[in-house]
Amino acid sequence: MKVSVIGATGYAGAELLAILHRHRQVEVCHITSESHTGVKISDLYPHFRGIYDMTLESMKDSESIGKDSDAVFIALPHGHAMKVGKILQDTDAKIIDLGADYRFNDTSVYEKWYNVEHTHKDAKRVYGLAELYRDKIKDAKIIGNAGCFTTASILALAPLVKNHLVDINTIIIDAKSGVSGAGRGAKQANLLPELYDSFKAYNVAHHRHTPEIEQALSEIGGENITLNFTPHLVPMSRGILATCYANLKENVKPEDVDSAYQNLYGDEYFIRLLGRGGYPATKDVRGSNYCDIAWHIDERTNRVIALSAIDNLVKGAAGQAVQNFNIAFGIDEKEGLDVVPMYP
Amino acid sequence: MKVSVIGATGYAGAELLAILHRHRQVEVCHITSESHTGVKISDLYPHFRGIYDMTLESMKDSESIGKDSDAVFIALPHGHAMKVGKILQDTDAKIIDLGADYRFNDTSVYEKWYNVEHTHKDAKRVYGLAELYRDKIKDAKIIGNAGCFTTASILALAPLVKNHLVDINTIIIDAKSGVSGAGRGAKQANLLPELYDSFKAYNVAHHRHTPEIEQALSEIGGENITLNFTPHLVPMSRGILATCYANLKENVKPEDVDSAYQNLYGDEYFIRLLGRGGYPATKDVRGSNYCDIAWHIDERTNRVIALSAIDNLVKGAAGQAVQNFNIAFGIDEKEGLDVVPMYP
Amino acid sequence: MKVSVIGATGYAGAELLAILHRHRQVEVCHITSESHTGVKISDLYPHFRGIYDMTLESMKDSESIGKDSDAVFIALPHGHAMKVGKILQDTDAKIIDLGADYRFNDTSVYEKWYNVEHTHKDAKRVYGLAELYRDKIKDAKIIGNAGCFTTASILALAPLVKNHLVDINTIIIDAKSGVSGAGRGAKQANLLPELYDSFKAYNVAHHRHTPEIEQALSEIGGENITLNFTPHLVPMSRGILATCYANLKENVKPEDVDSAYQNLYGDEYFIRLLGRGGYPATKDVRGSNYCDIAWHIDERTNRVIALSAIDNLVKGAAGQAVQNFNIAFGIDEKEGLDVVPMYP
Amino acid sequence: MKVSVIGATGYAGAELLAILHRHRQVEVCHITSESHTGVKISDLYPHFRGIYDMTLESMKDSESIGKDSDAVFIALPHGHAMKVGKILQDTDAKIIDLGADYRFNDTSVYEKWYNVEHTHKDAKRVYGLAELYRDKIKDAKIIGNAGCFTTASILALAPLVKNHLVDINTIIIDAKSGVSGAGRGAKQANLLPELYDSFKAYNVAHHRHTPEIEQALSEIGGENITLNFTPHLVPMSRGILATCYANLKENVKPEDVDSAYQNLYGDEYFIRLLGRGGYPATKDVRGSNYCDIAWHIDERTNRVIALSAIDNLVKGAAGQAVQNFNIAFGIDEKEGLDVVPMYP
Repeated sequence: MKVSVIGATGYAGAELLAILHRHRQVEVCHITSESHTGVKISDLYPHFRGIYDMTLESMKDSESIGKDSDAVFIALPHGHAMKVGKILQDTDAKIIDLGADYRFNDTSVYEKWYNVEHTHKDAKRVYGLAELYRDKIKDAKIIGNAGCFTTASILALAPLVKNHLVDINTIIIDAKSGVSGAGRGAKQANLLPELYDSFKAYNVAHHRHTPEIEQALSEIGGENITLNFTPHLVPMSRGILATCYANLKENVKPEDVDSAYQNLYGDEYFIRLLGRGGYPATKDVRGSNYCDIAWHIDERTNRVIALSAIDNLVKGAAGQAVQNFNIAFGIDEKEGLDVVPMYP
Repeated sequence: MKVSVIGATGYAGAELLAILHRHRQVEVCHITSESHTGVKISDLYPHFRGIYDMTLESMKDSESIGKDSDAVFIALPHGHAMKVGKILQDTDAKIIDLGADYRFNDTSVYEKWYNVEHTHKDAKRVYGLAELYRDKIKDAKIIGNAGCFTTASILALAPLVKNHLVDINTIIIDAKSGVSGAGRGAKQANLLPELYDSFKAYNVAHHRHTPEIEQALSEIGGENITLNFTPHLVPMSRGILATCYANLKENVKPEDVDSAYQNLYGDEYFIRLLGRGGYPATKDVRGSNYCDIAWHIDERTNRVIALSAIDNLVKGAAGQAVQNFNIAFGIDEKEGLDVVPMYP
Repeated sequence: MKVSVIGATGYAGAELLAILHRHRQVEVCHITSESHTGVKISDLYPHFRGIYDMTLESMKDSESIGKDSDAVFIALPHGHAMKVGKILQDTDAKIIDLGADYRFNDTSVYEKWYNVEHTHKDAKRVYGLAELYRDKIKDAKIIGNAGCFTTASILALAPLVKNHLVDINTIIIDAKSGVSGAGRGAKQANLLPELYDSFKAYNVAHHRHTPEIEQALSEIGGENITLNFTPHLVPMSRGILATCYANLKENVKPEDVDSAYQNLYGDEYFIRLLGRGGYPATKDVRGSNYCDIAWHIDERTNRVIALSAIDNLVKGAAGQAVQNFNIAFGIDEKEGLDVVPMYP
Repeated sequence: MKVSVIGATGYAGAELLAILHRHRQVEVCHITSESHTGVKISDLYPHFRGIYDMTLESMKDSESIGKDSDAVFIALPHGHAMKVGKILQDTDAKIIDLGADYRFNDTSVYEKWYNVEHTHKDAKRVYGLAELYRDKIKDAKIIGNAGCFTTASILALAPLVKNHLVDINTIIIDAKSGVSGAGRGAKQANLLPELYDSFKAYNVAHHRHTPEIEQALSEIGGENITLNFTPHLVPMSRGILATCYANLKENVKPEDVDSAYQNLYGDEYFIRLLGRGGYPATKDVRGSNYCDIAWHIDERTNRVIALSAIDNLVKGAAGQAVQNFNIAFGIDEKEGLDVVPMYP
């Protein structure tokens, strides 16, 4: 099968190429970058030398890229993918967008939080969080790959919400991400000397992953959920940990919580349940598509604290995109993704 | 004035010596270590070469150390300080304990959380969080210096609790600390390769700083407070960030929150208010005694999110100890502590 | 094919298991640890959960392990492998030792530098640096896998020495390694707070990789070489960079140097030549078996400066071991090793 | 005394302000930035909040700045300081330039390596490496503060060269620096994800500190010295380690080397001799003006390996500038600089 990557020079695009190199059923045929058209990808990313020495093309002729491809991955900033999606719509290629353009059912929510007009409102799209939307992904033409913070947060909370174990008005997500999530653009704030030995929050009460989490959990729980989401920046390269709080409803027993996780995720290859009292660490999933999940119950306050760890560039972006691709094409979901996390 | 340090070889003890070197009114007369008696401190900490080449003594003869000293700083593991405190009680020396032994009004709380019998229950002690207990510290014989997480957490929440702006049943503290907080003991879990590029929670629902935070906030708010406290380990050396959540009571306006912080801390030198919408970063306080505080209001959920940043070894330990020392002896509170944070 | 790993709980052992998971022609049948016999490897390394949940055995019955295995990898501290090797010698299993016991032709050199009596002097062994000793490895029974610093150093210098381009009395290797090279043992000196934001040399003029480098370069150059080797510790987890200096002989032209590298390594898959003026970075090879090499000529001093970068745990240990295994069994040399380095 | 800082917004400028805050005999009267004129320094560097809230001025009216000041520190990119220096020349202010414009006796060397025309060739200037040029600094009008790599390198090698203990044709300096040396400009290459867990060399055989080192060592040794200098980038914020190699001349004994260091530096407060066999670490000097020095002798190759560690922003820039300032004005050399390095 032939696949192309529109916008291959960001960290997510590069991670995608690395994963596709392991995938035994695909061949990468086009990779694009508007700012580096004509440049070899290995000149921008020397770690690709000898592995990917392809030249970056322009995405201007997206249509012919679509015609050459069974699937097109889009790794562009939000607002740009929908333009490409509109063009590719009439090709046979399936579309997997790693950005936000196709994640929202209600495009007015997108428009409000992203401050951009949505120009492809009638796109037939599905939300690309593999474990929870697998059936829909199977038949999808356009997949709006779930975001990084959202993947960690939704997977941690879904069993609680689905089984109505918690008071939905009490959900707080305190999330922490490595700096690769901020992209490869040159910003003073992300220089090593600025971030080294430093820790801080950002976008409190305003991060764009908030409505995406709310959409999914509302669907899963069957009622409208509004919650707090607070991201923080960790002085490391990769990884997200989400610490999720909620009040348990009356009479909910610890075993009910255990069952909720076991029932929803017991058969999932990429979700590893560490059980009640466990401690996921981002390093244990680094470079892999795993999401490690554990939960704690504080009897003093009757709160559940759910913890989840992912690699933001893999399960939070490129890995999940390939997982969705595999699902959409009926390939073994693990293909290209069955690697041991890198430790230490 | 003459001061001594019992237990000088941990990170807090070493930081204390560094601060005392800048203090123009003290001379360090005794430093002790049971495991390194007879060794020069600069052999254990080469950064002290030429600055402190003193030899570590045993603390066995605490009484004579107390007689030589105007003040004795104790930086021992919990359970050990109270033994020394009992001996020093009858000397003229003031005692500043950096550990937990003298932090609790109700020693049964201490005994429950620390799993140790308290053997100095009648000690006349005050809680050493300078900004909130200054008046009591002035006359104190024994000061139980506030813990690191607790200092950050209490200072962030005190204005809200004191002014009854939040529902006290909704307080959640999600805290993050650099690894120096775990001490200098050789543990596999704290090796650089293990922690590098990793992030995780620990001691969820069971950390010993929980009851200490509850004690202080309950006193400040005048009602019993039970809350969630969740610590995390950041792959960095120094610094604590506390992210504190609480539901605002009805009709509380953003300006009420602003005023609460301004009124309580407006005149405090070591508390820097970044205002509503600000973002404290641990790097901005690194190596200093500052506590930077900001707050956000999420109108969607009617929650306040308060953020505070400290250096765990300074404002969270040795710096606060010297601040308490200065208060207790009527010295300018800034003496020895008026330094610019180290950046970058 | 069946393989076993004696001493699976160090960083090199764990990396080996990660690589073997990708290898399509092997099955791991025994893994051992004396200090953790009976424990699941995933309890020691949670990143293995769901991938390797095997139980660690004792190596006491090495003979039966050998009989079950086509190959046995040994990842024990030096001095211990030769005892196992002696036992395994009479089984059909090939032996790949990741330690130093089988690296030296002249065991008296080993005994002098390692301060241990060699008890398996008559072992038929070959030196396991794949690119330079491939022909010998093909028929080997016992392979003494090259060390980490030595691999980087020898590969960088071999073309110069082989072609007699440099004055062999002027060779200086200034090498830098991530901390994973120091192993997983709990040592105060390797705690994150100790190493973070720090850089230093160690074992100057006395590091045990010195005679190993000298042995190989002397063989390659056909004359006895004595050189300087200086290791340094970098505050990072993985990676080695070797900066190698030597005076060019008279009349050696830059093009001669270029040709020497091209001729020796032009066809090597795992050696990537960045050419004259290039800059290898450890990150570009992280998690992979590549060795990136470049060279510079300083016309002012007539010195060549050769640079090489490897991942110490892969090309410097487990990756090279699998590469040697593949060679010894006539398998495609890339099997299990053809991965994109992890970036960023 | 009144001092001003021209170009206060780089890392060296900020460090200078931090040091001047501790200095009991100075008051900062002007700070400038062309790109941030009118902005408060604490808006650019939040760690200065409450300490320095001064507004940045333009340096356009340098002359009046000079008239207001007893000394002017210049922390501009090379090529810019000499313009300011020319204007300030006729004021009473002493000038301490942290850049390269006033470091070279022979401005043609400067012009060749920096590729800029020197427009202030007749400036009466002295080289500002305090320990070796103290007498000249006492009477100086313009001080060309020594560079960071150069300070570490020259201090490590001066005793060997001065006492003619080494073959001057064999000097090789392999130096390593934290990333703060690259400045605060937004560059993709210096983003945390790019540098984290990475190590590499740069500017091999072409770094501009080479001729500066050669100038000083040639003066000290009394003969022209040409040498190799190779810088590397360490994934940390602060610190430089220089590893210096040279062949010992015949009949030089280890004790001769010891004496050379002891005689030259025995009385220097800011140079700490760790002796033969010692290991300086950048962390042991972090945040301080110390230069820690040790040396090793490799009897196998008859080479001496000298090691030195400094904080690049302190002894390698701002600290040395204040030390020079103190010397020039007859103030105690330690004033403002007598702090304990920050550990851990």
